[in-house]
Amino acid sequence: MGRRPANETPLNRDMIAAAALQIFDEDGAAAFTLASLARKLGVRAPSLYNHIESKADIVELVREAVASAIDASMFGSLPWDEAMTKWAYSYRAAFAAHPNTIQVLSTTTVAAPGALRKYELVIAGLTRAGWQPAEAITVMMAVEAFVLGCALDLVAPEQMIDTTAAASEVPVLAAALRAAARSQGRSDEVFADGLEAIIQGLRLRLAKPRRPRRNSHADRP
Amino acid sequence: MGRRPANETPLNRDMIAAAALQIFDEDGAAAFTLASLARKLGVRAPSLYNHIESKADIVELVREAVASAIDASMFGSLPWDEAMTKWAYSYRAAFAAHPNTIQVLSTTTVAAPGALRKYELVIAGLTRAGWQPAEAITVMMAVEAFVLGCALDLVAPEQMIDTTAAASEVPVLAAALRAAARSQGRSDEVFADGLEAIIQGLRLRLAKPRRPRRNSHADRP
Repeated sequence: MGRRPANETPLNRDMIAAAALQIFDEDGAAAFTLASLARKLGVRAPSLYNHIESKADIVELVREAVASAIDASMFGSLPWDEAMTKWAYSYRAAFAAHPNTIQVLSTTTVAAPGALRKYELVIAGLTRAGWQPAEAITVMMAVEAFVLGCALDLVAPEQMIDTTAAASEVPVLAAALRAAARSQGRSDEVFADGLEAIIQGLRLRLAKPRRPRRNSHADRP
Repeated sequence: MGRRPANETPLNRDMIAAAALQIFDEDGAAAFTLASLARKLGVRAPSLYNHIESKADIVELVREAVASAIDASMFGSLPWDEAMTKWAYSYRAAFAAHPNTIQVLSTTTVAAPGALRKYELVIAGLTRAGWQPAEAITVMMAVEAFVLGCALDLVAPEQMIDTTAAASEVPVLAAALRAAARSQGRSDEVFADGLEAIIQGLRLRLAKPRRPRRNSHADRP
């Protein structure tokens, strides 16, 4: 690895994480490169390699910073469905604070220890509640997909559908959009209602005799 | 679309849409600029403005192209919950074919006539089934958020969680991931199970506050 010239600022991983997150927040995901990060930190790009191994390593630092706001502790005390709901809200809020990170964090392998420890709490809570281990992963990922889809919506413009270009052809849609516009906080409502539906559906599935699943008998911790 | 006389400009909106989509697919969202599009088409950038009004206009052409694979016709014939399920599958497949368009299409206002006409079918189907117009918008957007969150997952690596960095601290998670890895098609399973849960939750909501509904309560196998 390279050596840091004496005239450069000492670096540490926290500083690198903060600078990387700042680039995502202020300039967008496309602006995040090793070169832009080095520039932001006032160092030469090779100096970064004294502290990080790769660009993927920095993405994990960013993940750790974003995920630090996610609360999964309630899986230790609340029923799984209530815990899942609260976890989903805090998850969405964490990404809402850094929407430009959604695409990269949702499409790269999670390896950050802090994020892993939170997943552990979720899966432990779900399995204690009666979900099979493999099912618990599926349930967690399904709720996560919904949260991320809703978080994308937070970066979207207030008016998500504009019927102007086909107004005469879509009268029912246009009227429904006018009715929906009168209810406040569309994004919040979509998230709240959708989450309630998915949790309710999952409650029913857990309560019912299980349908046969591939390899379900082999699923042992 | 058909042959054109040699003396006409070879550029048209369909060609622009195809070239733009090709840039997204092959080079990623960050590579999509008016300059790269002009280069791909072999014209100067100002020539594009004979056919399109703005970059946003091209995004709508891309949306039209991606959305053309989405099928909403079943809302005219099937019960809303079955139609919604089939719509969600075709929606996910459409974005799965062009994953690099997800971020931009999910964070910009929908104005493309073809996409609007499909929303019209969805909302008309939902309101016929008894959903209030504003509720229908919320329901459609909640399912859409889930679909988009799942579509993001399609661009993710096969291994979505790597416990190496904290293995001793996350034993339950690690065991559950090993169990889940034995079931095939993780992404497909998360999508199928999550969609089933959300539709089931929505069925209950539609049945509850209003008069009891007798159709469409059958569980899927």
